[in-house]
Amino acid sequence: MKRKLKMGMVGGGSDAFIGAIHRRAAFMDNLIELVCGCFSANPEISRSSGREYFIPDHRIYDNYHEMFEREMELPEEERMDFVTIVTPNKWHFEPAMMALERGIHVVLDKPITFSLEEAVKLREKVEETGLVLALTHVYSGYPAVKEAKARIAGGELGRIRKVYVEYTQGWLSQRIELQGGNNAGWRTNPNTTGKAGCMGDIGTHAWHLAEYVTGLKVQEVCADLQTYVEGRPVDDDGASLLRLETGVTGVLMATQIATGEANNIRIRVYGDKGGLEWRQMDPNRLILRWGDKPTQELYMGNNEFLSDIAKWNTRTPAGHPEGFIEAFANIYRNFALTVMAKRNGEVPNGHITDFPSVYDGVRGMQFVETMVEASKDNHTKWFKWIE
Amino acid sequence: MKRKLKMGMVGGGSDAFIGAIHRRAAFMDNLIELVCGCFSANPEISRSSGREYFIPDHRIYDNYHEMFEREMELPEEERMDFVTIVTPNKWHFEPAMMALERGIHVVLDKPITFSLEEAVKLREKVEETGLVLALTHVYSGYPAVKEAKARIAGGELGRIRKVYVEYTQGWLSQRIELQGGNNAGWRTNPNTTGKAGCMGDIGTHAWHLAEYVTGLKVQEVCADLQTYVEGRPVDDDGASLLRLETGVTGVLMATQIATGEANNIRIRVYGDKGGLEWRQMDPNRLILRWGDKPTQELYMGNNEFLSDIAKWNTRTPAGHPEGFIEAFANIYRNFALTVMAKRNGEVPNGHITDFPSVYDGVRGMQFVETMVEASKDNHTKWFKWIE
Amino acid sequence: MKRKLKMGMVGGGSDAFIGAIHRRAAFMDNLIELVCGCFSANPEISRSSGREYFIPDHRIYDNYHEMFEREMELPEEERMDFVTIVTPNKWHFEPAMMALERGIHVVLDKPITFSLEEAVKLREKVEETGLVLALTHVYSGYPAVKEAKARIAGGELGRIRKVYVEYTQGWLSQRIELQGGNNAGWRTNPNTTGKAGCMGDIGTHAWHLAEYVTGLKVQEVCADLQTYVEGRPVDDDGASLLRLETGVTGVLMATQIATGEANNIRIRVYGDKGGLEWRQMDPNRLILRWGDKPTQELYMGNNEFLSDIAKWNTRTPAGHPEGFIEAFANIYRNFALTVMAKRNGEVPNGHITDFPSVYDGVRGMQFVETMVEASKDNHTKWFKWIE
Amino acid sequence: MKRKLKMGMVGGGSDAFIGAIHRRAAFMDNLIELVCGCFSANPEISRSSGREYFIPDHRIYDNYHEMFEREMELPEEERMDFVTIVTPNKWHFEPAMMALERGIHVVLDKPITFSLEEAVKLREKVEETGLVLALTHVYSGYPAVKEAKARIAGGELGRIRKVYVEYTQGWLSQRIELQGGNNAGWRTNPNTTGKAGCMGDIGTHAWHLAEYVTGLKVQEVCADLQTYVEGRPVDDDGASLLRLETGVTGVLMATQIATGEANNIRIRVYGDKGGLEWRQMDPNRLILRWGDKPTQELYMGNNEFLSDIAKWNTRTPAGHPEGFIEAFANIYRNFALTVMAKRNGEVPNGHITDFPSVYDGVRGMQFVETMVEASKDNHTKWFKWIE
Repeated sequence: MKRKLKMGMVGGGSDAFIGAIHRRAAFMDNLIELVCGCFSANPEISRSSGREYFIPDHRIYDNYHEMFEREMELPEEERMDFVTIVTPNKWHFEPAMMALERGIHVVLDKPITFSLEEAVKLREKVEETGLVLALTHVYSGYPAVKEAKARIAGGELGRIRKVYVEYTQGWLSQRIELQGGNNAGWRTNPNTTGKAGCMGDIGTHAWHLAEYVTGLKVQEVCADLQTYVEGRPVDDDGASLLRLETGVTGVLMATQIATGEANNIRIRVYGDKGGLEWRQMDPNRLILRWGDKPTQELYMGNNEFLSDIAKWNTRTPAGHPEGFIEAFANIYRNFALTVMAKRNGEVPNGHITDFPSVYDGVRGMQFVETMVEASKDNHTKWFKWIE
Repeated sequence: MKRKLKMGMVGGGSDAFIGAIHRRAAFMDNLIELVCGCFSANPEISRSSGREYFIPDHRIYDNYHEMFEREMELPEEERMDFVTIVTPNKWHFEPAMMALERGIHVVLDKPITFSLEEAVKLREKVEETGLVLALTHVYSGYPAVKEAKARIAGGELGRIRKVYVEYTQGWLSQRIELQGGNNAGWRTNPNTTGKAGCMGDIGTHAWHLAEYVTGLKVQEVCADLQTYVEGRPVDDDGASLLRLETGVTGVLMATQIATGEANNIRIRVYGDKGGLEWRQMDPNRLILRWGDKPTQELYMGNNEFLSDIAKWNTRTPAGHPEGFIEAFANIYRNFALTVMAKRNGEVPNGHITDFPSVYDGVRGMQFVETMVEASKDNHTKWFKWIE
Repeated sequence: MKRKLKMGMVGGGSDAFIGAIHRRAAFMDNLIELVCGCFSANPEISRSSGREYFIPDHRIYDNYHEMFEREMELPEEERMDFVTIVTPNKWHFEPAMMALERGIHVVLDKPITFSLEEAVKLREKVEETGLVLALTHVYSGYPAVKEAKARIAGGELGRIRKVYVEYTQGWLSQRIELQGGNNAGWRTNPNTTGKAGCMGDIGTHAWHLAEYVTGLKVQEVCADLQTYVEGRPVDDDGASLLRLETGVTGVLMATQIATGEANNIRIRVYGDKGGLEWRQMDPNRLILRWGDKPTQELYMGNNEFLSDIAKWNTRTPAGHPEGFIEAFANIYRNFALTVMAKRNGEVPNGHITDFPSVYDGVRGMQFVETMVEASKDNHTKWFKWIE
Repeated sequence: MKRKLKMGMVGGGSDAFIGAIHRRAAFMDNLIELVCGCFSANPEISRSSGREYFIPDHRIYDNYHEMFEREMELPEEERMDFVTIVTPNKWHFEPAMMALERGIHVVLDKPITFSLEEAVKLREKVEETGLVLALTHVYSGYPAVKEAKARIAGGELGRIRKVYVEYTQGWLSQRIELQGGNNAGWRTNPNTTGKAGCMGDIGTHAWHLAEYVTGLKVQEVCADLQTYVEGRPVDDDGASLLRLETGVTGVLMATQIATGEANNIRIRVYGDKGGLEWRQMDPNRLILRWGDKPTQELYMGNNEFLSDIAKWNTRTPAGHPEGFIEAFANIYRNFALTVMAKRNGEVPNGHITDFPSVYDGVRGMQFVETMVEASKDNHTKWFKWIE
């Protein structure tokens, strides 16, 4: 029988930010229901959160070990189909691996793991089990970003030459991690966030956006990571020259100390026929520039001149803005349809398979390793991508 | 016991536009579940739609008469708590009245009814029953619009003088209602849409936005309605000079023949200390202008400088854009919390009661009547608001 | 022999605003030199200003009567070819008429005169003498405005239906005319400015822009003029529904009490194939919107896709912004080339004749009369254009 | 006696682009008159151009040797006070040196010379003679750029941390230098343009803007210069990581192959209290961002909240856009007032001395040398500024 996909959750208590986004994204399209979870390392918060989410008490768990154990005792029809993990990076790997080992699909927030080594293990497990792992590089979920990718893949910009990608935030401009009550704490702590601060948290998004849109892989970097806020043990700023496949060069900028910037991720790509630009804080517009004709502004919606993949990932007619949650929901919806197809014994294909996977996750951790190594000892030079 | 609110639906089949928006808005915050519906005048489509929405067959109905009858036979815990009605205007009144008569709360798309007379009857029934009726004037659901209202109410702009409100669309620039396969058909047919075309469909939104933001009522208009597309039996364009309470004057423009415009609703208000501007196609920004200091741009999010009501209606941190569906969801969430409060015997108050009601609905129908009468016989002159 | 055109000036002392703009516009293209003037009603200021402008003492005059008398005594090669008059409206007519009677061409700031009657007399004198009179409706001098006009004239937007024109300023939002030291004094005094305040000062610009861009004449208005600042004897705000030739309707808004607005004149025109938008505070861009293809942004410059007339009125390559002074200079340059052509016995034609003339001036005064009459006694109704 | 400054010109024939900009900038403020010149290497063009500029035949010269010789024979009151040199880089040094040797002030387009060696010689000569040399780094002439500098200098942004500067053009995206009839020829020829193509032509502007606005010097770079268009003997693209004084880091991007970009120079600077952004294609706005309050947009004009230096370099009230020619004119006006002050035996000071000088010129050539050396042999690493 046709039924919704059942979701469990690790993290995402009522005191957390990104968990609520995941839930809204998951619920929006009416394909997924939340059935269980351990929503916090603090059992009290887990419990009160679960009740707030209308979860029956017996499926609100104190920790993920308990959750996986007890869920597996339920009939297959009842137990969770997939788990969404929205904990600090340090606690991505273990629950993800436990899920995969039990035949449960996984949605993970980025970066995929605490270390590259862990990411590689997840990749192996995914390949071994054939399960689906989605990684929420949300910016690739925006229809205008998919339109950008489609235009480049279709050759409209000609031979690609240049890519500028940047991600500027200002919220870590002061040492707010000392105040508590925000998620700056674990994000600036190398024991919970991993080798890189800014580069892991938002640099990975910028890198992913560049590779997703151009379809080209970064091969060498020349990086300069900085820590501007005194006492902070990880980078909070960085920039890098890039060399990508086919001779494309580029620049990546990521910073969390650009005071006054909110969440300004933006990409520009230029080919020998045209260029394009997308800015997340005005996400429904894609700008196309041309050598010999006027600049075009494509406002998303079901316009005929848009690509099928952009339209597939759009819920509203032109002029009705979509945003961050819808971009997230595109990943969830495509993930859900992929899992459902598998459940029905079908081979998922077409637009529904277009969401970041464990391979993006591994590459993202390589990016972190590469940037940290490349910047070490102030030796800035062309540094080869760490495979 | 705490449980989600149960929603039934009239209209909103898988071939419809606005129904899908309503569902996403209703589901996003995990307070509401869809339990039944008659999703189309065509029973085949109703059935296939219901299944697509994971409704069990016995609660997919062929028509709303059947729906209300059968739902009332269910235990109170199971039956729908409220009904969302997203049919053409002609079929708003009857199901809404049937619901109210049965103790079922109502969500209605705008304009509230086919005629002013019907709207007044709904108002009486709401007053009689104490039930909740929400009207989805979605633009008042945007956090930046609520911020605008809060700033004006707080006196920051000084004594208000001028309001410009406009709503420009271009999709009816050609006679596409003859093609079928779109919702232009019923919207341009006076038998289904009511006395006004453009003024009823989008003029009401513009009018509502003006009154909502300023907190002032329109008292007189001087209107010019036009039909630009030959053969169309209702207006597809119009403009009006406005006089509001306290000596404020203004201009309202609404058109569906502004070729190339998507869904461009925008408001500007000026007082003797400052002015503000909001545009729906860039909805996360509110512009404040001042006589003696720089223009300010407020990007929504949980910024400290925003009003409580804007923050209450925001789901993301600054820089993470929200859009049309979230604005819709604000109406649904506030409506749901209001109904839940009533269910718990509490008096709903505070931000949760801030959503358009049956009183906005009646006034919206007065607006339609006023504009049509004022424009009649080409006699443009100051015309008093029809009460 | 080829020589620059010699300019005299009435008004434009070093304490004035618009006179300096006129001079810069006149000098920029190296076709015009300033040779004489009476720069202020105050002979002291006239003298010090003239010296600042490098005028020899004997050609700095105390008043324009003296100026015309003495200039006529000079050899034709030496005397001024034309006079620029940048005084308050009350003192436009007399010096302009004196110039025309002496064979001297004229540049006048708008509105052309204090009254319609005076404007008609100037028109008769221009027709009688064959001299050139340019009126500085500066906004029609912008290349993007000329591009807009060319696109509409060429039929690209299809049959025109709708025009929205607006001019919002906030500088008269308080009664600053009482402070002195600014030019609010004469502009809000009916003895110096004429029948209308806001409508004469900036409404005329908005009206002119609408007629210039569309090529259509306003035939009827339905107007509401307001005075928001207590004690001010003229209107400081107004709006009007418009009916133009060929069934086009529109809205004109002009206000000087929109607190925080600087000098925001903007036009939108829609036809059945497309629409366009231009905003003066971002003057190098022209937006074209289409029913079936992406919005275009044309950045001025010598782009091949621009019209010849836009290119003729452009001094820089694409991406090098021009502004208000260049728009003014386009009027001066075209005026100068027209006068030079006449001097050479040629019939001026082509792009050089595209500048506002005495006919625009008369029509502008008709606009003022029409708006004032139409708004009188609060009788708002369709009011026929006063010829 | 008070008189205008007399300008001679090398280059700037009627077939050239930048010469016309220089003239308009020089004439606009009525402080300068053109008295002589050799306007082209082609005497025919020089002659016809000079006549077009109303220069008497005897002061139109065939070459600059002749010009300097003959001008020196004129009485001091008649001869040129300064010479503007707007030839390809190869021919900057010789005429500039000849002028300085004869007591004639100089205006030079950037980059100052063909080589660093030449620039150093000019510096020595300027120091020796006490003459004035202005270099037209035009972007530092915009009032909003001066406002940016003033805000940073005044400490409003706090301690500066980061600077992003970029200059994207697309006009050399194809090998248009082969077509002739444009100025791509000499700009892509190392025999006329110097060691660098893109970096010399526009990279110098970006570098200068960064140092001007921040008041900080670049100390190390890590650069990657590219040639994307096959067969082109100089770089047409490049990017560089920057290290500036006081621990500031940054990124500089300059490219001429960003297809569809016009002349997009833009700067962003972040300190620990706030950030700012300026874009040349929307030059009248300065954006200020803050950690704890709304973003501000400052529209230039004589607003009270602007710095004195911004107001000094502004000619219009708020809302009346200025552009590229006015930015150029600010350099000319300040240069002219400085020369006049010297002529009057005064020590020039205050805002009039704020224009790029021979020191900026020398540093600009160091920038070119540094970028070329740093990028050589693909050895990207931190490379010390070449003094």
